[in-house]
Order: sequence, then C-alpha cells, then structure tokens
Amino acid sequence: VLFERMVIIGPGLVGGSLGLAVRKRRLAGQVVGVGHRQTSIDRALARGSIDRGSLDPVSAVNGADAVILCTAVGLIGPMIEQLVDQLKPGCIVSDVGSTKAGIVRHAEEVLPTKVHFVGAHPIAGSERRGVDYADANLFQNHVCILTPTANTDGEALAKMQQLWTTVGARVLTLRPEQHDEILARTSHLPHVAAAALLAALEDTDVPFVGQGFRDTTRIGSGDPDLWVDILLANREGVLTALESFSGQLQQLREALEKNEAETLRDFLVRARDRRETKLTDPL
Amino acid sequence: VLFERMVIIGPGLVGGSLGLAVRKRRLAGQVVGVGHRQTSIDRALARGSIDRGSLDPVSAVNGADAVILCTAVGLIGPMIEQLVDQLKPGCIVSDVGSTKAGIVRHAEEVLPTKVHFVGAHPIAGSERRGVDYADANLFQNHVCILTPTANTDGEALAKMQQLWTTVGARVLTLRPEQHDEILARTSHLPHVAAAALLAALEDTDVPFVGQGFRDTTRIGSGDPDLWVDILLANREGVLTALESFSGQLQQLREALEKNEAETLRDFLVRARDRRETKLTDPL
Repeated sequence: VLFERMVIIGPGLVGGSLGLAVRKRRLAGQVVGVGHRQTSIDRALARGSIDRGSLDPVSAVNGADAVILCTAVGLIGPMIEQLVDQLKPGCIVSDVGSTKAGIVRHAEEVLPTKVHFVGAHPIAGSERRGVDYADANLFQNHVCILTPTANTDGEALAKMQQLWTTVGARVLTLRPEQHDEILARTSHLPHVAAAALLAALEDTDVPFVGQGFRDTTRIGSGDPDLWVDILLANREGVLTALESFSGQLQQLREALEKNEAETLRDFLVRARDRRETKLTDPL
Repeated sequence: VLFERMVIIGPGLVGGSLGLAVRKRRLAGQVVGVGHRQTSIDRALARGSIDRGSLDPVSAVNGADAVILCTAVGLIGPMIEQLVDQLKPGCIVSDVGSTKAGIVRHAEEVLPTKVHFVGAHPIAGSERRGVDYADANLFQNHVCILTPTANTDGEALAKMQQLWTTVGARVLTLRPEQHDEILARTSHLPHVAAAALLAALEDTDVPFVGQGFRDTTRIGSGDPDLWVDILLANREGVLTALESFSGQLQQLREALEKNEAETLRDFLVRARDRRETKLTDPL
C-alpha cells in the first residue's frame, strides 16, 4: 500500500481510471472520490473507481496521504486554495492537468512546506468525458510526465513515480516550463488547427467530407470550456507554437505559389517520414 | 451488364476495389487491368480485382466500352493523350482523380467528340496503397462526385451514375471547378495542415506525442508524390483555402493574445458543434 487514504478530486475519465487502476492493484487502503453532484459519485461508485464518495472536498481531504486533483485545469488552483488549511503534514498533492507551469508555481506558492506538491500529466484520455468511460488500463503504455522543481520533495516524487509506473505508465520528467512548451506543439496546437479547419469549412462542404477530414478534426470534439482553460493557461507556449506552424504553412504556400514541386515534395516526404517512422508505434 | 469490356488503368487500392465491386455485381462482361509491372497485375488477378491483365494500355483499350483511369492525378492527362487514337466511338472514359478542373478540361480538349469523358471522384480510400487493400465494399455509403460539363454526353453520365450507385456509392454532381474549390477545404488543406503540424514538431517532442496528435496527422502518411500532384493540380483552390485557414488561425491568435476567453470559447464551441452534429455520421 502506497497511501492509506487517497482522495481523487473529480473522478471523471482520467480520475476515475486512476481510481480503478489504484484499487485493482491495491495501491491505496482507501480511495475517496470527491464530485460536484451525487449522481457523479454514484456513477464512480458503480464503476468501481472509488471506495466511497463525498460532495465536500474540505472534509474529504482531512487526514489524506495523497490528494490527486483531476478537475479542469482552471479549477486546480482555486481547489488547492480551498484545501490548503486541511492538508496534514506529509500529504502529497498532485494533479493530472494538461498544463503545468502555472499550476506548479501557484501550488508551490500557496501550500505549506510540509505539504508536498508534484505536478503530473498522464498523456492519455480522449475527447470523451466521464467516469462511464473509465478504464483501469487507460495509462498502460502511455507516458506520464512528472514536473518536479528545485522545491519538490524527493520522497514525494519517488512515490508519485511508483504510483504511475505501477498503473502501467512510462514516467518521464520535465521542468514545468519545458512541459508546456512541448505540449503546445504536440497537443494544444493540433487542437487549435483542428478548430480552424472546422471553421474554414463552408456549410455546403459537409456532404463532401471524407475520413481524412474526420480524423484530422476528431480532437475538435473536445470540451470547449476545458480547452479555453488549457489555451489560456499555456498562452505563451501556444502563441510560440502557432508562430512556428504559421511559418511552416507560409513555406508551403510560397512553394505552391511558385509551382516548386521539389520543395513541396521535400516537405511532404519529411512529414511522411516523421509520421511513419517515429509516431506509429504506441509508446 | 453495363459494359462489355471495362478497362481499369492502375488497379491499386481504388481501381482494384472498383474492379472487385464490378465483378461481384457482374456489371461488366470482362474487367481488364492495366499495370506498370507484371507483379502488380499478378496481385490484382490474385485479389480477384480483374479478369485479365495487360502491361500495354494501348492494346488493352482497343474495343473497350469503358476506360477508368485510376492512376495518380498527374498521370491521367498523359495517359489520355497516349490512348486517344485507340478508343472506339461511344467509349466512355472516366477517372477517380482527387482534382477535377484540369483533368476534365484537358480530356475534353484532346478526346474526339464520339468518345465521352465523365470526370469522377469517389471519396473513399485511405493513406494505404495497393491492390492488397482492395475491398469490394470500399465505396459503400461513401460519396462519389461526378463532374459533368456542358459538353458531357447525357447517356455516358447516366451510365457512370448507374455504375457508382450500383457499387454502393451516393452519387453527387458538381461542376469541376466547384469540386476543386470544395475539396481544397475538405481534403487538400487538411493534408497541408497535417504536414505543417509534423514539421512544427521538434525531434525531442516525439516521446510526448499522444493519440490526438497521431489522429490529426494520420493523413500525413499519404504518398508525397501523389500529393504534390494533387496540390499543384488544385493550386488556386488550395491557396484560397490556405488563406481562409490562416485567417481563422489569426483570429484565434488575437483572441489568445488579448486573453479573450469568450471569443476563444465561441470559436471552440462552433468547431465542436460542427464536428459533432454534422460530421460524425458516416454518409
């Protein structure tokens, strides 16, 4: 048992899957789920993601050894502020948010020294939401990024490494700022590009859409509120990635304007090679 | 039987699937496949896509009732020129190319009046290539666009409509220029965007790529030579679509720069709604 009592705030797709995986592997004496509404808690209980539920985060975290924040990115900071006085010395606080720099900085500012924050981001999930899709194997063979800083407690970091490794993830470590810079290119920019492709479509185009367009824009189905939070939380990273992307598009456009077949071909060959040799194998 | 002898030039994924579907439904007395190499023909024969094969297009089309050009977009024009003197009066020539305006214009210029060209584009296929992936049901529930002009023979058009409807496609009609304008947005632009997303990636980002990026860039695996042909053949359309796309990206960027959460949210809500309500059902 890694933790006597683990609290999962927001047992949805990711939080609920973590609960399932932790319970299956008996990594915690007890998993407590905190939700907004009784129905969410009932579904998490029915799914087997938690041992018991609570509507009150403040009382739920009392005495907890680990508190994992699995809410929308924009709610993580406010939730930490709400809980700060309830956490016992030695408690590990972590999260699963898609951005890290702002969350980690804020958490380190407001939490007392004896409460240990470790930023985390499992690269798993989908455009689907809710505990009904939770899966004990969601993290299997997926990367989980931990983002320790100079202030991070070594023992807390080791425990979080053990937690994520045991549920099947491959743990990698990045500085919070590095995480945000990389994820801007691998996740946030593609989301923005998908939304812009959908926006560039004319209504009358719809019957002519094929599988390629459908795949390219699948992530456009993601929850708008979650994504506004993510984009604003990683504003600098996304703006930098957008600039690089626009530069690449500009190169393609110039080659096309000048009918430069060889330049276009080189560009598409590099894209195909990157897609085929490096990304097709699941991690 | 719709055609006594149908010739498929280039029995790969699309041509080979058409052959399979035509043979299964006995739409032609005989399906002849023309390939570059004996091994391609042998594979098409083994797959059941053709009744017999030939390495020589000129002799193969002699006496044919229908010739369907299933080669790369850039090879369709030269192939028509090579065959123009061999086609019997009343022969229908068609294609499955991803661009239409240039191909249709060129075909109408070089073919004699008694040979009837009908431009066609079945919206089916994938980034995979070759007759080994051919499937008699490839066109089932997919749109096939026919692009008649003022010069198109009515009877030839009706026959092509019957052919594609019988193999399971939903036939829609567009002017060739309209086709290219629409496909620029629904297919060619997404390809360019996927290539630019792959180009914007740094080498060190690769371990952090998730399923969203993989889906968004799947079409980046397409054959570079085929795609250079398509982009150059639809240069104007692609440039216009790129301009519209860049405009949308610019709007997102400005909203992000100004921290305008509501503008970002509206943009993402429209994208999500378009993705969910209109595109998720297969046609």
